[in-house]
Amino acid sequence: MAYHLNSFDALVEQFRKLPNIGGKLAQRLAFHVLSMSDEQARAFADAVLDAKRTIHYCSVCGNLTDSDVCSICSGPKRDRGVICVVASPSDVIAVEKTREYNGLYHVLHGLISPADNVGPSDIHIKQLLRRLESDEVKELIIATNPTVEGDATAMYISKLVKPAGINVTRLAFGIPVGGDLEYADELTLTRAIENRREM
Amino acid sequence: MAYHLNSFDALVEQFRKLPNIGGKLAQRLAFHVLSMSDEQARAFADAVLDAKRTIHYCSVCGNLTDSDVCSICSGPKRDRGVICVVASPSDVIAVEKTREYNGLYHVLHGLISPADNVGPSDIHIKQLLRRLESDEVKELIIATNPTVEGDATAMYISKLVKPAGINVTRLAFGIPVGGDLEYADELTLTRAIENRREM
Repeated sequence: MAYHLNSFDALVEQFRKLPNIGGKLAQRLAFHVLSMSDEQARAFADAVLDAKRTIHYCSVCGNLTDSDVCSICSGPKRDRGVICVVASPSDVIAVEKTREYNGLYHVLHGLISPADNVGPSDIHIKQLLRRLESDEVKELIIATNPTVEGDATAMYISKLVKPAGINVTRLAFGIPVGGDLEYADELTLTRAIENRREM
Repeated sequence: MAYHLNSFDALVEQFRKLPNIGGKLAQRLAFHVLSMSDEQARAFADAVLDAKRTIHYCSVCGNLTDSDVCSICSGPKRDRGVICVVASPSDVIAVEKTREYNGLYHVLHGLISPADNVGPSDIHIKQLLRRLESDEVKELIIATNPTVEGDATAMYISKLVKPAGINVTRLAFGIPVGGDLEYADELTLTRAIENRREM
């Protein structure tokens, strides 16, 4: 009852290795590839190889880029006085989507996490300090997640940088817009009360 | 505030075109590709191209194969007296997974659906009739889904084939194993009662 279909199975297996893709979806995606035109399949494969070949980290901020310095760091209209510190390149995309922030970024590529043996020297903190040596930067917005690791990293950077006279802020935590008090967890509600604003 | 990262965006876009993959997951998959080694990315791209290049329809049953005749049709141990008729190659995989069926298959590549302008000549029924011209086949198991289209197709084939003295059966419909009477829909329950068996 052997049922061999090697290159199809191989493709299903490749899709299965991707995050959030189980067996059923992997099979469906493989069938979809077979239903593509030759040009479409080629474009898909090329996109994988092109991205892998051309995208690397910006030498200044650590964000993803296809040139030496990313388009944000080299953007003439960006405010060079503010740096938003994030854990990963996907956070840069999230903040950019708000279209509210016009400063620079610094990607840490991780968060301090003693439980996972990740110390301050394992993430891009040294690179951040080097950027602060110029007098241009006036404010650091720490946009790490409100988790144990995000809090620890924010604290660590804040203590290191504040003595140099740089203003350090962190994203506000509170009830999500459109959220419901009744369903907010206690920690979020506590933070929302602590950070209440006059109106 | 322009944020250009062309080959990364292109990859996200390619993932978004796949079925069941939304914007967030597409982005996550693209980041995953960047985290792959060069060899892994190459293997992934090659799997897409290899499958697309080598997989086509079996000239006998219409199933997917990388040779002229698929491994089921050419399998020496398969029972050539039974043909299981299915709508698509993914149904072949589903039936094979039961490890209970040892006959051949015929893939229709669609179902009769007047609403979508799909008639009997648009799916692989002619190819099925040609296979029945030899005297070898004793039974046709129609394994189309219990939908309007699946029912219509099953009926059509059954009427066409029965006069030739071939035994035509269809998969049993009823309560799914592990299912709950209380939650079975009325149609399924009706079919389960109609098809009740002595015990």
